[in-house]
Order: sequence, then structure tokens, then C-alpha cells
Amino acid sequence: MKNIFSTKPLAAAGALDGAGIGFDHGASRAVIDAVLPNVDNGRFAVKCVAGERVTVRAHCFTDGHDVLRVQLCWRAQDQNQNQKEFREVPMKPLVNDVWEAAFSPPSVGRYVYTVVAWVDPFESWRHEMTRRVDPQDVRIAAQVGALEIAAAAARAEGSDRAELQRWATELDATAANPGADVTSLKALALDDEYADLVRRHPDRRHAVRHPVELPLVADRERARFSTWYELFPRSAGTVPGVHGTFRDVEARLPAIAAMGFDVLYFPPIHPVGRMQRKGPNNALEAGPDDVGSPWAIGAAEGGHKSILPALGTEEDFRHLLARAADHGLEIALDIAFQCAPDHPYVKAHPDWFRWRPDGTVQYAENPPKKYQDIYPFNFECEDWRGLWAELKSVFDHWIGEGVRIFRVDNPHTKAFPFWEWVIGEVKREHPDTIFLAEAFTRPKVMHRLAKLGFSQSYTYFTWRNTKEELQAYFTELSTAPGIDYFRPNAWPNTPDILHEQLQTGEPAVYMSRLVLAATLAANYGIYGPAYELREHLPRGPGSEEYLDSEKYQLRHWNHDDPASLAPFIARVNRIRRENPALQRDRGLRFLHVDNDQLLAYAKASPDGDNVVVTVVNLDPHNAQWGWVGLEPASVGVKDGQPFQMHDLLSGQRFTWQGDWHYVRLDPHSVPAHIFVVRRRHGDERDFDYFL
Amino acid sequence: MKNIFSTKPLAAAGALDGAGIGFDHGASRAVIDAVLPNVDNGRFAVKCVAGERVTVRAHCFTDGHDVLRVQLCWRAQDQNQNQKEFREVPMKPLVNDVWEAAFSPPSVGRYVYTVVAWVDPFESWRHEMTRRVDPQDVRIAAQVGALEIAAAAARAEGSDRAELQRWATELDATAANPGADVTSLKALALDDEYADLVRRHPDRRHAVRHPVELPLVADRERARFSTWYELFPRSAGTVPGVHGTFRDVEARLPAIAAMGFDVLYFPPIHPVGRMQRKGPNNALEAGPDDVGSPWAIGAAEGGHKSILPALGTEEDFRHLLARAADHGLEIALDIAFQCAPDHPYVKAHPDWFRWRPDGTVQYAENPPKKYQDIYPFNFECEDWRGLWAELKSVFDHWIGEGVRIFRVDNPHTKAFPFWEWVIGEVKREHPDTIFLAEAFTRPKVMHRLAKLGFSQSYTYFTWRNTKEELQAYFTELSTAPGIDYFRPNAWPNTPDILHEQLQTGEPAVYMSRLVLAATLAANYGIYGPAYELREHLPRGPGSEEYLDSEKYQLRHWNHDDPASLAPFIARVNRIRRENPALQRDRGLRFLHVDNDQLLAYAKASPDGDNVVVTVVNLDPHNAQWGWVGLEPASVGVKDGQPFQMHDLLSGQRFTWQGDWHYVRLDPHSVPAHIFVVRRRHGDERDFDYFL
Repeated sequence: MKNIFSTKPLAAAGALDGAGIGFDHGASRAVIDAVLPNVDNGRFAVKCVAGERVTVRAHCFTDGHDVLRVQLCWRAQDQNQNQKEFREVPMKPLVNDVWEAAFSPPSVGRYVYTVVAWVDPFESWRHEMTRRVDPQDVRIAAQVGALEIAAAAARAEGSDRAELQRWATELDATAANPGADVTSLKALALDDEYADLVRRHPDRRHAVRHPVELPLVADRERARFSTWYELFPRSAGTVPGVHGTFRDVEARLPAIAAMGFDVLYFPPIHPVGRMQRKGPNNALEAGPDDVGSPWAIGAAEGGHKSILPALGTEEDFRHLLARAADHGLEIALDIAFQCAPDHPYVKAHPDWFRWRPDGTVQYAENPPKKYQDIYPFNFECEDWRGLWAELKSVFDHWIGEGVRIFRVDNPHTKAFPFWEWVIGEVKREHPDTIFLAEAFTRPKVMHRLAKLGFSQSYTYFTWRNTKEELQAYFTELSTAPGIDYFRPNAWPNTPDILHEQLQTGEPAVYMSRLVLAATLAANYGIYGPAYELREHLPRGPGSEEYLDSEKYQLRHWNHDDPASLAPFIARVNRIRRENPALQRDRGLRFLHVDNDQLLAYAKASPDGDNVVVTVVNLDPHNAQWGWVGLEPASVGVKDGQPFQMHDLLSGQRFTWQGDWHYVRLDPHSVPAHIFVVRRRHGDERDFDYFL
Repeated sequence: MKNIFSTKPLAAAGALDGAGIGFDHGASRAVIDAVLPNVDNGRFAVKCVAGERVTVRAHCFTDGHDVLRVQLCWRAQDQNQNQKEFREVPMKPLVNDVWEAAFSPPSVGRYVYTVVAWVDPFESWRHEMTRRVDPQDVRIAAQVGALEIAAAAARAEGSDRAELQRWATELDATAANPGADVTSLKALALDDEYADLVRRHPDRRHAVRHPVELPLVADRERARFSTWYELFPRSAGTVPGVHGTFRDVEARLPAIAAMGFDVLYFPPIHPVGRMQRKGPNNALEAGPDDVGSPWAIGAAEGGHKSILPALGTEEDFRHLLARAADHGLEIALDIAFQCAPDHPYVKAHPDWFRWRPDGTVQYAENPPKKYQDIYPFNFECEDWRGLWAELKSVFDHWIGEGVRIFRVDNPHTKAFPFWEWVIGEVKREHPDTIFLAEAFTRPKVMHRLAKLGFSQSYTYFTWRNTKEELQAYFTELSTAPGIDYFRPNAWPNTPDILHEQLQTGEPAVYMSRLVLAATLAANYGIYGPAYELREHLPRGPGSEEYLDSEKYQLRHWNHDDPASLAPFIARVNRIRRENPALQRDRGLRFLHVDNDQLLAYAKASPDGDNVVVTVVNLDPHNAQWGWVGLEPASVGVKDGQPFQMHDLLSGQRFTWQGDWHYVRLDPHSVPAHIFVVRRRHGDERDFDYFL
């Protein structure tokens, strides 16, 4: 051809070139307009859990009335070049040019998926053949079909080939016989078994492939569903004023496990810096016995790979890990990439810090706030490669000790490219590792961290208190695009955040906030024992800091307090464990209630079998009542049929019927219902809940 | 470094690699999370109009509290390698990590834009300096600043360098002098003019560039705002039964121009096939005098580049083009890539068609419907390159004759890759060309055609009749993502579609549908004279086809009918010409009315100066009244102030005040108001309308 085809594709440099566009594929008529889910067009990975179904949709069509075939292609993203072959799953058309298929990544790790589509000449012919009525048309069409079948035979081998050839010959001969019965001829042309045979040997010469292989991370189940308990090991001692140890923590394990937690998370366990050590309540001067902030990491005894001697030895740590595992508890460590002024790194790698003209290091600050006990790393230093490698070795060290969950402190104050690299590298070697991002910052920043690879993310839950706020926020968290990569981990409190609402110490507030976190989010946690013992005094008016915070001093807790919420927490966590609907973030739907103090929502398991309806009274002082809108059909009950609502908190059972249901909650007993829907045997189960 | 950095980036093959990610850019801490607008991440071009502002937003941030600088970069997408240089516009931060800037592509053609961001050490230092209070801190910070300024001096040349060096030296010396006044020192450090000097020599070593150069097509204004009139030239004759000519059309030009149209569009003007020619009302057999369908293109006299001799000569066509231009009318041609059985292509290029075993060509059909007079091209043929080239030459031919607007018939039944290629090539050579896609098909298909390059698209307007339908549809059409690439062209009727609503012939229906099309869509058209003369009989019950359609026979029109809607149409089109608010699709907002038969909406010009409020009575039989919600502040009037609503249809002026306004419309007079808001002099103009 002339040089009119020599022009480069029009798509701008760097833009994706659509498969089938351009000049080598003019005859490729299938269009793949979109493949979902994807995170920023495949720049980042979608998240899922190994062994669970990933549903993929593609927007596919072609010109005119010809018939498409569309296949979902997936494979493990292995470094091994031999495992590059895709497995294919046929996609089925829904409405409006949307095609769908699903696959289940068999094990943890990275995968990629994409879509292939082609205009199928045999299916197109078959589709038209079904609609032909004129005898002469049927005969000619049968001859055309015989050619397609013969072409399929040529693509096949062995017995398939022979059988297809036989069919093609018979069809052609029958079509050519003017005496042949047209109805029989059409039946022969449309034979289902033969058609399946052709489908096994499709004509994919003009197939189009979506130009992006979309990445997917398959985590283990705990990334999706986990229940965290945070404690300061140094306050686990039994004698007031005596530094707690890992052995003391071991003594607490049965109680923590009994409350139903499965992740036990410790603030940093490393040697605490002595230079610029802070005193109680963040005092600038520390006394000789003050223990300092565990986040001021590093001293003569060592840094991020060392254990504070007062807590125990490496041997003690390993022992604790094993004992925790016996109780179904996994230990999560805090990784805070920052140094006390006497951290060994400061001397060994002065080039990793930002020095000032006066010979001091630029400590962390957010003027006028100053963190004199903490030096940040300079991620713009010349030796950033050395810095990255050393920081990765911190993860590697604790992975070597048996830890697989890391809560990362303030990741948004470290260079973003580092996180993508380090999480990618660590998970490539240990794909069962889970990273929780402790970033309480602006929304786009938090989302970026999740895109970069963090398995879970802290949220704004603490500051979402009204019905309107909670509905808006959790609707956002449970829908696309965030749901594909951002896994919320909701905390009613942390050592840094004693929300104003909690400062009254009212049990109703502590119960309702716990129920909200535990039933709105599949991942949640509390900072205890402060939570179950309703520690509630702030450092000062308007402050969200705890008074006498464990961050700066030892505390001693009265676990035997009869007012402890431990039994309540145990009950809520047991409900979570027993109800798959509460173990994922998808499938959340808020229900209408004619009372702004009552929040109601339904969650369903993927198969729809388990539906949990939670109703929370947000008013800690007054009983509130109202009508909850719940259509029976939306939870798998036939309209008009009664169904049972079993309150798993109180054990009470209510019978509901129709669309509107009266609910009354008194904060002076329990401010919430967590109902499971009990359908009668024989009620339809294959119901249309929602995606 | 060790081999831990040798691993390839994690982003999947084919996915976009984020700038700043990976292993050569570890110290690049700026993040560009998104750049908007974009169509499928830059796979397709955003559309705009040359000379008008394109507003670009970027989601940018970095770790910690350092200060970013963000630049919008744009350039013409020229084949000339010398014009690869980007022009830069500083982006300003809005809220929530969104940055914004705008540029105006100076002329029609293709452009690309992208975004560059970097953590700016000087700005970061300056930001912290403003917050420092402790004298010792100020002194040390000033010394740090002096180093940054000296670094900027090293990047500068000439007088800039000298001046920066002078400032650095002075700042350092003052900081080192313990007796220096701290307030003066801080003022010297924060000097604005000096700061601007540094900003001219930024440290961009760690700059990050968005990895996609997003394409943009700048069209001429008519792509955004056009008013179409379709007529069959062969029915333009003055004597019934005599074939009309281009000369006859010339005689109609003053009347068409007086109605306010600016595009005059003809169905195909080529020789009509004689083989399988259809008779009146799509009869299978044509009589000897039957003229056939103009869409059955090609006969012995020629094909897509020829003119039906009965219409006139090439000379006549050029004369008509010139006369039309004198009346401000541009001729649009219909491009229908299909052939009558006697089209010269069928003999010359039999390989471009799909032949059947009986030696016939597969004519167009959608079983059981058959179009025996039309052969489709086979876009899967071996010689698709030859076919593409020839079809492009059809556009080239008519462009050579002076045509720049093409209405493309059924583009969705031709291969999609062809359209991207041919529109791209034609517009590369003639960027002022406008293509209208006549695809009445499924939504994703219509959107794909717009993405592939069609300048305008037919819509579902004809079948959107109720208030709810119109609000939902035009909200979709006037918002992202469609607004960035899909320009609707709304038609109340076409030769193929006489909607049931129009079949009563009631003037109120014809008037309201025209007002809706003309004020909801910046591009609209009518098929006349059928519209203004209210031709309304369908071929049969339930049919949307016209009885005795011009598609198959000559018609003769009584332009002197006193009931003609021509004066009404002229008035509406004049209102469009005089009100910029109606000349774009952005800026549409539906207003609340407490009556389901009244539809009300406001449109605003980009500067907000021109606000048009349209109210339409959708009930052709009864007067309807109700209260329209319009807050004065939303149209630039101070709350509490009265403002004038000038009905440009009736000439009446109403005074409105407050938020709710009574409106009554009687279909037996005029079923609509088209108000322009007249603010009193001195009313605020810089108001917050909406994007």
C-alpha cells in the first residue's frame, strides 16, 4: 500500500495503544472498551483474597450484528518466564455490552488478568441461521456454514477434525440437494453438539487483546477480615510501676483471645532513645526513671532490629509469638521509620539525615510543634538506595522472627516510591505479609498509600459520628473505586486519639462505637485496655490526647474491673466470627430509618445466605425509636412472608413482616441490635440482594 | 548497590509506569495521582474548541509538609519534531490536593498536555521560615536558606546569578551576626522580590512527570455550536413531480438562512443504483420513474465521488456551496459507506464484498429485515488496506470540492478501527473537518464512536419525552466523563424517525420538541420542510417511518403554508445565536418545579454573564402551572434583590424575587418560556454559578 499507512498511531506517546487499533490489525473488529475492576488503568493492583472469586467485567462489542466471543485471561505474575501462559475463562454477556466472568486465584501472590475478544464467524453465521425462514436462504446459508465448519476442521486435529469434516460434507451435500427437507437441513446446521465442537477450535486470527495486563494482589484472608487489639507490653506488668515484659503479655493472652481478637499489635518494642527523651505527658525533660516514647527508636542497645532489654530477649519474643499462636493470636509489630538522636544509624549513616549549619540534625517538626526526640530520615539523600535497602532489612529481620503483620507508622511522611518498592519486594518474597498504613491525613494521600500496596488502612471512622457522616463515609468505603484497593481498618480509639465523644466515659458511647466499627468494617481494632476499661480523661480541654498516656509512661490496668466491657466485646467479636456478612466490606447497604439518631444497615455474605442487619442508637442519653425500612425480597424472603430477626447481642428474636419495622433502643441497656435474618426453610435463597 | 534493585518495576507489562516510581528516581518524592480531564487515561482525545480555555486539574501531593510546585505542560501534537517543546503554566492548589491551570489552544488541531511536579526545597524552606519564632531557630533557618539561595544562584546566569549570590551572602552574614535584629533577618529571608528570582531557577532535579501525554483535539467553534437543516435536494423543485436540482436548493437558501440555520445537510447526492431499486414506501419493486433511495449509492454514472446527474453538475454543486456560504450556510454531506449492486466498486473490487456460494453478494440484512438494494463492504477482506484508502479518498474528494462537514451514515456497522484511522488522517490534513456520527444504537457503542474521533453524535433525544427521561439524559450528556468527548446533536425528527409524539401533528408538540432540542443541546437539527410544515402521517400504525417518505420518492412542499413553524423556528434560532449560554453543553442545571409536566433548566455562559432559563410545558393539551425553584445567588443576583426575567420568545418581561417563581404555560399559544436573566446594574457578576 501507499505511504498513507506509514503514519504512526494517533494515540499520544505514552498513552495506551488500543489493541486492534493501528495498521496491522485493520480486520480486527472486536472492541474492548473497558475492563473492570482496575486501579488507575492497571497502574496499581486490585486487591482480593486467595481462593475467593474475583469477578471481572468487560465492555465489549463489535460493528453490526456479528457475534463476539470474549475470554477472561489470567495467570500468576511469576518471575518465572515459563509461567507466562494465561488460563482462559469464557465471559458471558449481561446487558448493555457488559461481559462477565470470574476466577479464583489459588494462592497468595500477584496475578494479572486481561481480556481477549474476537468476532466469531461461526457464531455469527449460527446466530443468523436461527433466524432464517426462506427455504432458498436456508440452503445458501447452510452452504456458507459448511465452509465455516470446514475451516474449523482445518484448525482441528485428530478425531475433532474428522468429525467436523464429516459434518461439513454432510451439510454441504444436503444443502445442495433440492429435494432435501429444509427443516431437517436447518436442524443439521444448528446441531448443538457439533457447534460445541467448532467452539473448541475458534477462528482467532482477528482476536483483539486488551492492551493492559491488570495486576491483582491475592492476600490471605486476614487482610480482609481481622480484629485487632493494641497494647503496650511495658504496661502489662502485674505490679504497679514495674516495667512489663513479654512474659507478662503472655499472661494476658487468654483474656485477649477470649475477647475474640486475632491480631495483637504492639507499639515499637525497640530500645528507646535517651537523648531528648520525653517525660510523662510529653514533657520536654524526662526524669531518670522515665521510659520515654517507644516511637523514639534506638539507643546504645540497638535500633529497629533490637528489642528493649526491659521487655525481654529475642528468645522471649519468639516464645510469646508461639504462645500467641496457640491462642489464635497473631502478633503485629509497629514499624516507625525514624530515629532517636542516639540511634546507631545516626552515627553510622550521618548521610541519611538532614544536617543543619549548626551541626545538629533537623529533628521532626511541624512548626511550631517540635519532636526533639525524633530524627526523620532524609529520603532525598544521595544514598537513598542504601537507606531503602536497610529499611527493607528491618522488615526482613522481623519476618525472620516470625512476624507477618506490620502496622506502619506515619507512612505519609516517608517518600511514596519507597513504599511501593519495599512492599512489593517484601510481598514478592513473603506474599502472606500484611501491611497496615497508619496515615491519618488527606483523602488522596491515604488512597495513594493503599494503591502503593498497603493491605489495610486506618480511616476517618474516629471522626465520623453522626448518622449522615457514617452513611456517607461507609458508602464511599464499600463501593468502587476505593473498594478495589482500599481496605479500611476502623478504630474507635488509638493511643493518639481519645475522641471527644469518648471523654465522658459513658458505656453507651463505648458500646455503640465498638458495634459500629465491628459491623461497618471487616477490619477493626481497639487500643486496650484503655477501651474496655473506658479510660477517658484527656490531657487537657480540647485535647484528643490521653491524660498520663502510655506513650510516655508506664500504666497499670485493673483488668478485674466489673464494669469492664470485655464480655460485651467478646460477644460482638463472636458475632463477627460466626457471620460471613460481617467479614467483608462489600455488600453494605444503609436502610432508611425515620429517626436521625438511629443508624441501620444490612450486610450480606457473597452468596446471600447470611444477612446481618445492625441498628445503632447514636444518642447515648435517650431511648430512641423509629421505623426501619427493609423489604423482605431484599434479604431473600418472599413478600408477605414473615421472617425472624435474631438479635445476636441480646438473644431476643423478633418476627418481622412487610417493609417497615419498629425498633426501639435504650442506651442504658445495650444501644444496638445486631440481627441475623432467619429465613424459614423453603424461602427462596437465590435472591437478588445487591452487588 | 546490591542486586535488590535489579528487579523490574512491579507495574504489569503494558500498564503505565508512574513517573517517579522505580529505581532511578527514588529521591523523586512528588506524586501526580491523576490528571483530568482524560478519556480512558489518554487512549482517546479530549475535545475542545480552538481559542477557548481548557481547564486541567491534577491531584498532586508529597510526603510530609514540604511544598510542591506543579506545572501544566502543553504543546501542539505536530509531526514536526522541532515543535516538541512544551509550554508550561503554573498550576494553583485548590482544596484537597487538587491543582488547577488552564490554557487555550490557539488554533484547530491536535495537542497534548501533561503535568510536572516537584518538591521545591526553596518553597519548603520559605514556608517553614514564615512559621519560625524562636530567634535561634530563625538564625539557623536563615543559614539553611542562604544555602538554597546559593544553589539557585548556581543554576542561574548573568544578573540573576549575581543578585542571588549577593542575597545569599547577605543573608548568611546577617544570620551569623549574633547582634543582628531577628525581625529584620526574617524579613530579609522572606523578601518577595528575591523569592520570585529564585522561582525562576527552580531545582527540578527530582521532578516527576505524569507518564501520559493526554491528547486533545481543538475543533472550530461549529463543532460545539451548530444548527442543522436537512433537506432532500431532489424535492426542492418548484413543480410537483419534477426532480429538484442544486439550483432549486439555491432558491431555498434565503428562507433556510432566515430560519437561523447554519448547516445545510443533504442525504447522499450520488447516482442511485438501479439494480434492486426500491419503490415508494420501501416497495420491493420500483417503477421506471421511481427515484430510489439516495442511500443505495452507485450506478453506471459513478459512485461516492459522483453527483446524480438529475441534481446538477460538479460546477452546480460548487456554485451552490458558494451561494450557501453567502447566506452563512455550510453544506454538510452524507457519507454512507455502502453500495448499490450496480456501484462501480462491485465490479472493480469484488474482493471488498462478501460473496455467497450461489455467486451473489451478501446484501445488508438484519434478519428478517432485508436491504436488497444495499451491499455492505467486508471490512475483514484481505485488501482492507485498499478499501480503507479508497474510502478515505471519498472524504478527500469532497474536501477538495469545499465540503468540511460530513454526517456519517451508520458508522456502527463499519469496523471501528477504520473510523479512528480515517478521522485521524483526514483531520491531520484538514483539522477544520467536522464528523457527525449517525449511530442510533447502544450507549457504549455510541460513546466509542465519539471517542474514536467523531466531532458530534446523534442522541436518544427523539425517544426522551418525559420530564424524568429528559432530566436524566441531559444530565448525563452535560457531565463527565461524556462531556469531555461526546458532543450531542439533538434531532426532534429525521427522515427515518417520525416519533409517535409528532404523529398527531399538534403545533404545541412541534414547538416544545424544537425548544427542547434547541436549548438543551448546543448542536441540534431538524429534517425539513417536514418539520416546519408538521408532516406527521406514519407509514402504518406503530411505525416511525414517514408515509410517502422522501427516502423513496420525490415530494413537493408548500412553503407558503401560513401554519408553517418557520417564524417560530427563526425566533428560537435567533435566541440561540444571541445567548452564549445556549452555545455549549456544559453549564446545564435542571430546576425544581412542582409539576411533572413542566421542565425547567438554567444554562450559563462560561463567564456567567449570560444565564438562560427555559421552561417547557410537556403537555400539548392543557395549560400547566407551577413554582420554579431558582435561587437568585445561583444566577448572580443578590439574595432579596428583584431581577428581571425577559422571555425572548414572547418578549414579555417578568420580575422575580426570592427562591420560588410562579410559571404558567398554555400549549395553545406557546408552550415554552426562554428567559434571559436581566440583572440590575451593580449586581454582583463574579458569582459562583457552577462548573
